[in-house]
Amino acid sequence: MTQTLQPDDERTHLPRPPIEALIRAAEAAADVAGAVIRPHFRAGLAADLKLDASPVTLADRTAEQAMRAVLSQLFPDHGILGEEFGLDNPSARLRWVLDPIDGTRAFITGRPVFGTLIGLLEDGIPILGVIDQCVTGERWIGAVGRPTRFRGPFGGTAGCRPCARVGEAELSCTSPEMFGNDLPRWMRLSAAARRSSFGGDCYAYGLLALGQIDIVAESDMKVWDWAALQPVIEGAGGRLTDWEGAALRPDGNGQVLAVGDPALLGDAIRLLAKG
Amino acid sequence: MTQTLQPDDERTHLPRPPIEALIRAAEAAADVAGAVIRPHFRAGLAADLKLDASPVTLADRTAEQAMRAVLSQLFPDHGILGEEFGLDNPSARLRWVLDPIDGTRAFITGRPVFGTLIGLLEDGIPILGVIDQCVTGERWIGAVGRPTRFRGPFGGTAGCRPCARVGEAELSCTSPEMFGNDLPRWMRLSAAARRSSFGGDCYAYGLLALGQIDIVAESDMKVWDWAALQPVIEGAGGRLTDWEGAALRPDGNGQVLAVGDPALLGDAIRLLAKG
Repeated sequence: MTQTLQPDDERTHLPRPPIEALIRAAEAAADVAGAVIRPHFRAGLAADLKLDASPVTLADRTAEQAMRAVLSQLFPDHGILGEEFGLDNPSARLRWVLDPIDGTRAFITGRPVFGTLIGLLEDGIPILGVIDQCVTGERWIGAVGRPTRFRGPFGGTAGCRPCARVGEAELSCTSPEMFGNDLPRWMRLSAAARRSSFGGDCYAYGLLALGQIDIVAESDMKVWDWAALQPVIEGAGGRLTDWEGAALRPDGNGQVLAVGDPALLGDAIRLLAKG
Repeated sequence: MTQTLQPDDERTHLPRPPIEALIRAAEAAADVAGAVIRPHFRAGLAADLKLDASPVTLADRTAEQAMRAVLSQLFPDHGILGEEFGLDNPSARLRWVLDPIDGTRAFITGRPVFGTLIGLLEDGIPILGVIDQCVTGERWIGAVGRPTRFRGPFGGTAGCRPCARVGEAELSCTSPEMFGNDLPRWMRLSAAARRSSFGGDCYAYGLLALGQIDIVAESDMKVWDWAALQPVIEGAGGRLTDWEGAALRPDGNGQVLAVGDPALLGDAIRLLAKG
């Protein structure tokens, strides 16, 4: 039986560039985003300024445009999805997923624990992720089939640590306000964990990939919030799933569970279960 | 009428050294604490390690001993109070108050937002404070009658920002778990504020002194947690009181309220009131 290829299908079957070329592109995008964002950090935000006219919004939009320019010049056939400017090339098998400033509250309050997230999906599956903290100069790079790499001036080594019991685990989330009606589910996990700490957005997942945190459970996460995290965490030996242990999907419910030691997954899922 | 001076009373009346000499001493103490602490940051803490045998405890105790050595060599007649090793020279009018690692959870989880706190009390009143973040290289210096100074590689300028209305204010606390039975009081303030963010310990008070955060309300604070903060905040134009607006005291109830704009104080106190 013969099928007629449409232009979109032809583009779909272009070979994937070598992973090292994709990593170089992601790093170039992170570099330009950082150059855009850094001058806006702690730049005298007045308390009563509206967010849509604020330095964070300006930095967010300009950084996304700069990353789109870098990636589309290198790979004009790839798709690009960003929080601010939507989706280009929707039928491409390879889709970059961008969040210029993950951790808006951290950025606004001057905490250097926000991050720029650059993920690459192949047929919807994350194959490459960069977490970049442009103020501290810390960068995590994860790619399928490779160990996660980390560099930065404060020390730390990529690799999740062993921690098989929830009672010994450091738990983290950005804010307990994110859970809404699911707060009791998170509280059950928190009560079982050794300790809980707050703040950090994507930075906390980076710390999990350095063996500093054992569990991160959050909700209300969009695909641009988690696509870059998955290769970083899995390349460090951890797992990233939804609260039922299933693979994350762009049309999922936004609940995300990261564990450094895969042995934690079963108990964490049971503690987060409904009811 | 003639009084007989006891040795303690004589020591009590020695003149206060020049404030610049005291600032130099506090900075020297911060320098040695940082040199002790930095190698322990992200130093491969196993999840199941007991805290009393952990790198954070080792760093905490060694840094306090190092700071005590520096300060007692410079000012043998001053008092020194530290979280780990108690009080020396209890009758001295000038008392150094030390917290080598404020933000143990941040330190343990690899977040560079803990801090070393060095305060100096004169007759129980804070007259000098240093907040030092030894990993990022950020340092705040506050002294009575002088504008707060800040230096660090990420930008930011000392000085609280105007923000007269709670509805426009950025609120922060380290963890909602710290409030215990007073959580509803904090929740009322949080509901009225523009936004709330979490994490940061002393670092959040430093950000208030940079005009990035408008209110920090916390509880369970010991004198070594707040003594250094007060000169930093007040030298930046803000205020540090208890939840009733009264001056903090070493024997107080541990509730602390910082506002960047003194005009916020009245509404913040009303929202935090009991009942």
